[in-house]
Amino acid sequence: MNPLDQVTARVWLTTAVAEARAGLAEGGIPIGAALYGADGTLLGRGHNRRVQDGDPSMHAETAAFRAAGRQRSYRGTTMVTTLSPCWYCSGLVRQFGISRVVVGEAATFHGGHDWLAEHGVEIVLLDDPECVALMRDFIKNHPALWNEDIGE
Amino acid sequence: MNPLDQVTARVWLTTAVAEARAGLAEGGIPIGAALYGADGTLLGRGHNRRVQDGDPSMHAETAAFRAAGRQRSYRGTTMVTTLSPCWYCSGLVRQFGISRVVVGEAATFHGGHDWLAEHGVEIVLLDDPECVALMRDFIKNHPALWNEDIGE
Repeated sequence: MNPLDQVTARVWLTTAVAEARAGLAEGGIPIGAALYGADGTLLGRGHNRRVQDGDPSMHAETAAFRAAGRQRSYRGTTMVTTLSPCWYCSGLVRQFGISRVVVGEAATFHGGHDWLAEHGVEIVLLDDPECVALMRDFIKNHPALWNEDIGE
Repeated sequence: MNPLDQVTARVWLTTAVAEARAGLAEGGIPIGAALYGADGTLLGRGHNRRVQDGDPSMHAETAAFRAAGRQRSYRGTTMVTTLSPCWYCSGLVRQFGISRVVVGEAATFHGGHDWLAEHGVEIVLLDDPECVALMRDFIKNHPALWNEDIGE
């Protein structure tokens, strides 16, 4: 697998950001994700649905993974997420052998992406200002909801 | 939090086993789980739904977690599962601060329960023959489906 170029990473991130914005518009937690196939096909996209569905199991990454349906293999796939993946979502990536994670930002929350890198997952950390602003504003305005979502 | 007594652990395991058997009867992967509250209340129960719903995100533990709905805290809760939790489900336990995991067996699949123990989660490993037989028979009869479920 070739390393991902930054242009593609940023284009793919726009899909995850659109999901995060859709979640925010629904009154939800603004984290979005998308799963891309080895050939660059969009396999699934989604956003956090804790508030909308009362479903704590649907983080952005799990929602995108679910939307992609059953796959025989995740070799060569890329999980794109607006925010560094929590342990739950990092565990998903490791268990299913997702090859790469594009992280919009890890400034407002530092999840398990270092752990994934140690276990051979390619990490592309973008430090995207739009992703940072989305989360910074949300955490400031809804601290209890954010803490609930990360179990703190 | 007091350590869990073996009698309670085995009683709670019967809930998870009943879920695993329900999944098997539906043509699914026979792994079941249940989330118990700090006071011993059953908060949620569920089983693997990959086959039934075409949903790869619903492992037994995530299904039980989802069924419990939104919770402000998981302090003192116990996740009971028929099988050692995979990285995905171990990440769930760690992220949300679930205090204890009762594992039916870890002979047919060794997941992340040692990692959880290192991070302060109380692990009760039961080595239950019924759980072992359920998985051993299933893996023998449906190896491709099992490998799909653990991303191998």
